[in-house]
Amino acid sequence: MSSNRRKVAIIVAGGSGVRMGSAVPKQFLQLAGKPVLAHTLQAFAQAYEDLEIILVLPAAHFAQAATILQHFPDAGRVQVIAGGETRFHSVKNGLDQVKDDAVIFVHDGVRPLVTPALIRRCYEAALQHGSAIPVIPVKDSIRVLQENGNAAADRERFRIVQTPQTFTAAVLVPAFERPFDPLFTDEASVVEMAGHAIHLVEGDPENIKITQPHDLVIAEALLRGR
Amino acid sequence: MSSNRRKVAIIVAGGSGVRMGSAVPKQFLQLAGKPVLAHTLQAFAQAYEDLEIILVLPAAHFAQAATILQHFPDAGRVQVIAGGETRFHSVKNGLDQVKDDAVIFVHDGVRPLVTPALIRRCYEAALQHGSAIPVIPVKDSIRVLQENGNAAADRERFRIVQTPQTFTAAVLVPAFERPFDPLFTDEASVVEMAGHAIHLVEGDPENIKITQPHDLVIAEALLRGR
Repeated sequence: MSSNRRKVAIIVAGGSGVRMGSAVPKQFLQLAGKPVLAHTLQAFAQAYEDLEIILVLPAAHFAQAATILQHFPDAGRVQVIAGGETRFHSVKNGLDQVKDDAVIFVHDGVRPLVTPALIRRCYEAALQHGSAIPVIPVKDSIRVLQENGNAAADRERFRIVQTPQTFTAAVLVPAFERPFDPLFTDEASVVEMAGHAIHLVEGDPENIKITQPHDLVIAEALLRGR
Repeated sequence: MSSNRRKVAIIVAGGSGVRMGSAVPKQFLQLAGKPVLAHTLQAFAQAYEDLEIILVLPAAHFAQAATILQHFPDAGRVQVIAGGETRFHSVKNGLDQVKDDAVIFVHDGVRPLVTPALIRRCYEAALQHGSAIPVIPVKDSIRVLQENGNAAADRERFRIVQTPQTFTAAVLVPAFERPFDPLFTDEASVVEMAGHAIHLVEGDPENIKITQPHDLVIAEALLRGR
């Protein structure tokens, strides 16, 4: 199922730190005995032996990242670079390191439960379709806010987006040459605005994003269940 | 903050069983030492001393419910009735028991982590606005499926709906006199189609719905954290 195509994961773990506040950033919190970010790195290292990792984070966090990498057996495959002002700029900084043809994964550092299986599914689909965005169904009812009040929305029409958002370099790199637009909320939106169709793949409900304290509790429980 | 208004919780725990399959229904699975449904009942019993509970479930599950109620200190406040073909019909069966003015909570039996605080918030808002639907923000990017492909949607415009969906009887009972429509996905949609505005209140991210095995693992972890 694999191929010889170069594989690069851009793992985004915070921008320049402006909106980060003073608490320990989530990617450095402990989860089942090691930092959240170490779990994330490990999943990508395990997915493919020849996968390279570009870790993008605020320069202020380089020392903490170095400590994680000291304990990481595949540290030789990880390059650490500084993030930009927004996620768009951080990813762009990462892309500057990818000159030739490759399949590029862009992943949230705070999604430590991503599995090698999901990473491989995204890779295969991106090779075939140019993009592969993992999504899961919306399991609760949803409502849409309107100018006056709100209304029921058909949840069957919506999908929740996860990462790794995966693309061929031929699709992703030119899309990021556009000027920044506040409507760029993720990589799929950038690629879509460059005129490409977005290919969806089946995500993983356990691939949660650590944004609140209770997410860490949930992640611990899910890891124990594996 | 309370009032003398009659309070009735209709707890829906499965319809007539048609789509239930052969496995043990989620509401009877063990969670931290007792069935999921026992946690749900307890939260409502604790919220208000004068709150009555109508438990709606398939007749085939009455025996299992009786076992739960034997161990439930407030069993005298619980009435058990048979569900209908759909959720709409189950709730309608419950409403047939509520003749006079009341504040009515409609709650999923498989949301055992609902808190008395959330129940009280819904009560107060429903008294004031006629309806109170607990919602939480969408924390991930979302995409909308279209006839050809899919497109980014603005997650800020959407809210994820939880229960208890709470209404005054004056609003809810007449709305349920309409004929069934497949567009009725929850009680808010029924009330909305009867021409009422829907009032949203702040939900609780921990108020999760147990639909998959890993949700039980998550619920256990969240209960331990309390």
